[in-house]
Amino acid sequence: MNPKVIAFDADDTLWHNEPYFDEAQAKFCDLFRDFGSHQEILRLILTHQVRNLPLYGFGIKAFTLSMIESALELTNHQISGNDIQKVIQIGKELLAKPVELLPNVVEVLEALKGKYKLIVATKGDLKDQHRKLHDSGLGHYFHHIEVMSDKTDSDYQKMLGRLDILPQDFMMIGNSLKSDVLPVLNIGGYGIHIPYHTTWEYEKIDFEVQHPNFKAIENITEVLSLV
Amino acid sequence: MNPKVIAFDADDTLWHNEPYFDEAQAKFCDLFRDFGSHQEILRLILTHQVRNLPLYGFGIKAFTLSMIESALELTNHQISGNDIQKVIQIGKELLAKPVELLPNVVEVLEALKGKYKLIVATKGDLKDQHRKLHDSGLGHYFHHIEVMSDKTDSDYQKMLGRLDILPQDFMMIGNSLKSDVLPVLNIGGYGIHIPYHTTWEYEKIDFEVQHPNFKAIENITEVLSLV
Repeated sequence: MNPKVIAFDADDTLWHNEPYFDEAQAKFCDLFRDFGSHQEILRLILTHQVRNLPLYGFGIKAFTLSMIESALELTNHQISGNDIQKVIQIGKELLAKPVELLPNVVEVLEALKGKYKLIVATKGDLKDQHRKLHDSGLGHYFHHIEVMSDKTDSDYQKMLGRLDILPQDFMMIGNSLKSDVLPVLNIGGYGIHIPYHTTWEYEKIDFEVQHPNFKAIENITEVLSLV
Repeated sequence: MNPKVIAFDADDTLWHNEPYFDEAQAKFCDLFRDFGSHQEILRLILTHQVRNLPLYGFGIKAFTLSMIESALELTNHQISGNDIQKVIQIGKELLAKPVELLPNVVEVLEALKGKYKLIVATKGDLKDQHRKLHDSGLGHYFHHIEVMSDKTDSDYQKMLGRLDILPQDFMMIGNSLKSDVLPVLNIGGYGIHIPYHTTWEYEKIDFEVQHPNFKAIENITEVLSLV
């Protein structure tokens, strides 16, 4: 593989993220345990999140608003103001979580630096992703930070167009086959999958990826032997 | 003035925005009129918005969450679930408002097209601003869309650095002296102010701007005689 530009997803690729969401959802389920099982409540949150995607997009503010709507539905609108406040607090705590880098991330970026143009391409809240990148201390490795409102074929195409990058020069590395790999393969780039131990339900796909420009690896250090 | 790149703010520069927020806030004030005057309630929302800025940033989702916190405070947490739902609905309606262009915007972009690199530089929600740009039909005029988490000197500096633009080649046009003009003058660019008939309290400044790279105009068509 011979890319000129290497883009990294951020959440669960550069730093831990999903466990914080899982923890937040567990707190929410506990708060409303009289109204449903954990599994039922998780399904309800996901329903609201997916329904709200076209209006809200991704990120913690959208997640908080979807939790509030889930709480209203669960309690048949009989929820107390104090419980609404607790749900808002769950969201605010997520926005203040420390950034914990995944193993070997710094070593890999250090090795790639100067040889390739490095980019972060992530979904989520603009403010929150900028905050995490700042707190991560990784900012100086990257030529460009792109917070994307979605990661479809056309979102990648627009990004590459604006940054004057040819698809065949572009490699995307991330933990989501659906968002980081498939759309990039579709537009002619390289897609590298590094699974994270837990995946948001929405990002799951139920088929195997087979493509000459695709590679699944276990650890981010394997990127160095691909390029 | 001799810029190579001309950037436009979006809300209340290219299209109407603040009147929709005013309308949303008026609905909110009506909903909670038993708990305070319009003026008191507006002040309370602003307090929550400003307090939440470091966590939430700008945009309608942040505004919705700040309205919910204002409603909790106003009602001493005695709010009903139905009223919370109404507040969420006020936010969702804002996210679905039609995009109404300001007068002469298309003519000016048409005249500048091809002669200058044109950019949109706006705060707000990523998804919402992308949606509005799409609905506006103006997307094809712009080389780059930058949704910024804030508009400080350093935010502009980072943007220009990434896009390889020299400050002395950069002109920013917008309705906010605080966000569109002052930081750009500070870093060595041109700042053009086109006041909109109503300004968000947070964006107001109480001094006059005097600077060789500054110009205040009444109508966007005057840009054509500046460059």
